[in-house]
Amino acid sequence: MKNINTSPISGTQELLPEKQAIFNSLKTKINEVYESHGFFNIEAPILERTEVLKAKAGSETEKQIYNVYKTAEEKTDSTEALRFDHTVPLARYIIEHENNLVFPLKVSQLGLNFRGERAQKGRFREFYQCDIDILGRNSLPISYDTDIISTLLDTYNSFELKTPVIARINNRKILSGLIEFLNLQEKSSEIYSIIDHSEKVSPEKTKNSFTEIGLSENDIKKILAFIGLHGERAFVIKNLNSLNINNELFMSGVSELDAVLSLLEATGYTTQISADMRIVRGLDYYTGTVFEFMLPEYKEIGSIGGGGRYENLTSRFSSNHSFPGVGGSIGLTRLFFVLDEYGLLRDNHASLIDYAIIPLSNNEIPYATKIAKALQDQKLKTSLIMTDKKLGDKISYATKFAKFGIIIGEIEANSKTARVKDFETGEEKVVDAKPLLTNSPSETPHSV
Amino acid sequence: MKNINTSPISGTQELLPEKQAIFNSLKTKINEVYESHGFFNIEAPILERTEVLKAKAGSETEKQIYNVYKTAEEKTDSTEALRFDHTVPLARYIIEHENNLVFPLKVSQLGLNFRGERAQKGRFREFYQCDIDILGRNSLPISYDTDIISTLLDTYNSFELKTPVIARINNRKILSGLIEFLNLQEKSSEIYSIIDHSEKVSPEKTKNSFTEIGLSENDIKKILAFIGLHGERAFVIKNLNSLNINNELFMSGVSELDAVLSLLEATGYTTQISADMRIVRGLDYYTGTVFEFMLPEYKEIGSIGGGGRYENLTSRFSSNHSFPGVGGSIGLTRLFFVLDEYGLLRDNHASLIDYAIIPLSNNEIPYATKIAKALQDQKLKTSLIMTDKKLGDKISYATKFAKFGIIIGEIEANSKTARVKDFETGEEKVVDAKPLLTNSPSETPHSV
Repeated sequence: MKNINTSPISGTQELLPEKQAIFNSLKTKINEVYESHGFFNIEAPILERTEVLKAKAGSETEKQIYNVYKTAEEKTDSTEALRFDHTVPLARYIIEHENNLVFPLKVSQLGLNFRGERAQKGRFREFYQCDIDILGRNSLPISYDTDIISTLLDTYNSFELKTPVIARINNRKILSGLIEFLNLQEKSSEIYSIIDHSEKVSPEKTKNSFTEIGLSENDIKKILAFIGLHGERAFVIKNLNSLNINNELFMSGVSELDAVLSLLEATGYTTQISADMRIVRGLDYYTGTVFEFMLPEYKEIGSIGGGGRYENLTSRFSSNHSFPGVGGSIGLTRLFFVLDEYGLLRDNHASLIDYAIIPLSNNEIPYATKIAKALQDQKLKTSLIMTDKKLGDKISYATKFAKFGIIIGEIEANSKTARVKDFETGEEKVVDAKPLLTNSPSETPHSV
Repeated sequence: MKNINTSPISGTQELLPEKQAIFNSLKTKINEVYESHGFFNIEAPILERTEVLKAKAGSETEKQIYNVYKTAEEKTDSTEALRFDHTVPLARYIIEHENNLVFPLKVSQLGLNFRGERAQKGRFREFYQCDIDILGRNSLPISYDTDIISTLLDTYNSFELKTPVIARINNRKILSGLIEFLNLQEKSSEIYSIIDHSEKVSPEKTKNSFTEIGLSENDIKKILAFIGLHGERAFVIKNLNSLNINNELFMSGVSELDAVLSLLEATGYTTQISADMRIVRGLDYYTGTVFEFMLPEYKEIGSIGGGGRYENLTSRFSSNHSFPGVGGSIGLTRLFFVLDEYGLLRDNHASLIDYAIIPLSNNEIPYATKIAKALQDQKLKTSLIMTDKKLGDKISYATKFAKFGIIIGEIEANSKTARVKDFETGEEKVVDAKPLLTNSPSETPHSV
């Protein structure tokens, strides 16, 4: 018997059953919406070849890779590590299984990823990410970008949060085109980074940052006017066109953004979408549409998911084809953490169990098991309480997790009845259990 | 562009979407049955303190532990590893959260475990295990043992396999009592191991093994007669009693076994249970009821799940209480592998998707998105096909994964209709789409 630290490792999620049930209900909803939108679920292993992971990782991510090794072996043998996202395993999967897949391929991946992040509140080292991606072989029409955005919006909507969710949508070609037009390509990554941070600092700070990297007053003015553009499609597109940026990339980005937003409007998403020139998304990897989801009433939470269009998922592997795609991701562990902290979840899980069946003595257990089985066969969550406690103790135990109690004494067992107690109202009634025991699947003690 | 090995690491499972859907349907069924039987789902992290894991692991398991370390750090810093089962994290969880839990506690855990096994066909290093456990605080009535067995039987039955599943049930006290009675305690672990292997070798071999460890002819005769006992409760219990083993442990084991089997019979499991003196289960850790599930028509597959009663889950940690319990586990990854290999799964997932919506040109996409959304809101799996291909190509793509096609041209868009094609029968009909678009949740294009 040792004194061992029994707390979960920092940066991991460990929930009590009630919270776990709420977390699981979000995961189930994500899965249901992804499925209903026609995504095929796949699940690549968590263990991945280190060479595969390093083929993508930048130096920052690389530092966070968890390698694995067996206790009895040397670290130098380690060629395996834990995946840090779903994108790299997906790229490997596509290359490996290309001939057995159909394209465009719509795939979902819901699972744990691992990063050796510094331990910090709300930052996780083991966390669920729920990704969807659509991959074309050699080409993929722009309309599929809306498929990803609408799927994710429907997913957030299925959570029935106490606060609205919106999608902020942009197209990287617009800013790239503007930078080309202003001849600032050499400062492109600094400009991206300043815009990416612009919402977290004051407008003066943003302006100073542009000055610091050597932009002219005139260019700064143009860029500030540009990133000031956000709101409804018609308004933003009109203003982008009136900037008179005579650049092909710019114009193609504006037209793609217009197409994506128009189609979302036509599908019925009008109040939940916004064009927003401040959305650039950090990753180099996006080349067209980019988007982020946020809770406009809780700006401090920041992005609760996002994604975008990329040129070729599998560029790090050799292949005869390119796989352009569009994808998005919900970081479920972090999202649950913040939604719970801000109290934005509706708790539909007040009771973990529907029925607690309480035989008065061991003699009634055989009859009670039959009642339990009949309910369980109807997928009603039913627990049989078989402790040697007094009735009062059994009931006080059951009320902690069940909606109804079904009390069974000698009289009930002999007469094939059951005493059903509504734990919320305290109401109690005796019901005939025979229809239940003859396996009529539509009857429940509550409905009888 | 490097030439990187893109196959999944050996000992991991990676499935194509069709197979993944079948795997997922089994996982969903397990979860549904566990939930309906009143188990609370919990999910401890995969990353676990090495000291917690080593508090239980025997030397064999310890060699298989995967430690983790970050690329940028030294191996000597590694104090974290991947869990190898659900039992150790559960024990830690109980100790950590005891005051926020109710006892008896019924918990389920469905998730990945990791073991550095030698790579071998059908042996996995990353695998799903689906556990249920019931923990008492200081005590737990024997009736709960049947709760675990019946839940697992209902789970296997929910798979609707092409072959029956049975539970073989025993009680370790019976054999321990017999060994005590014969005064063979010093050879106890060898005797357990020989019995454990007896089904894989000839009766002669088993007899020789007993001779080799120095048992007398008389003792061997008694043990062989004993392990020959299996079949219906009444028969086995009668024969056990007629052995005249005057030993308290033995008699208590027989009476527990009788109670567990009687209650299962009363609940309605008559053809799926069998008392079997050959079932001992390798783990030291079991102290009473033990059970294994098997496919009697496919004996070569061996055990497809099992579990038993243990004295104290948390004995490796310090606590004021003991937590006796009973639990069982389905090794889903291996089970799926063998069921698939033997062709024992009924494939209910011929089509991954219900409806493929096929607009004839980009002009019909806005109307098509509305149809898609209406179906998706009803949780029907619906995919919108927006490629710039000819109709024939789009249909041949859609038939690979969808049950029905919904073809939408200019005429359909203008008249608010849809052309629904049953891909299986080839039948095609035009239906009115207006009820669908006005959001009547009970209408589908197929039912209209």
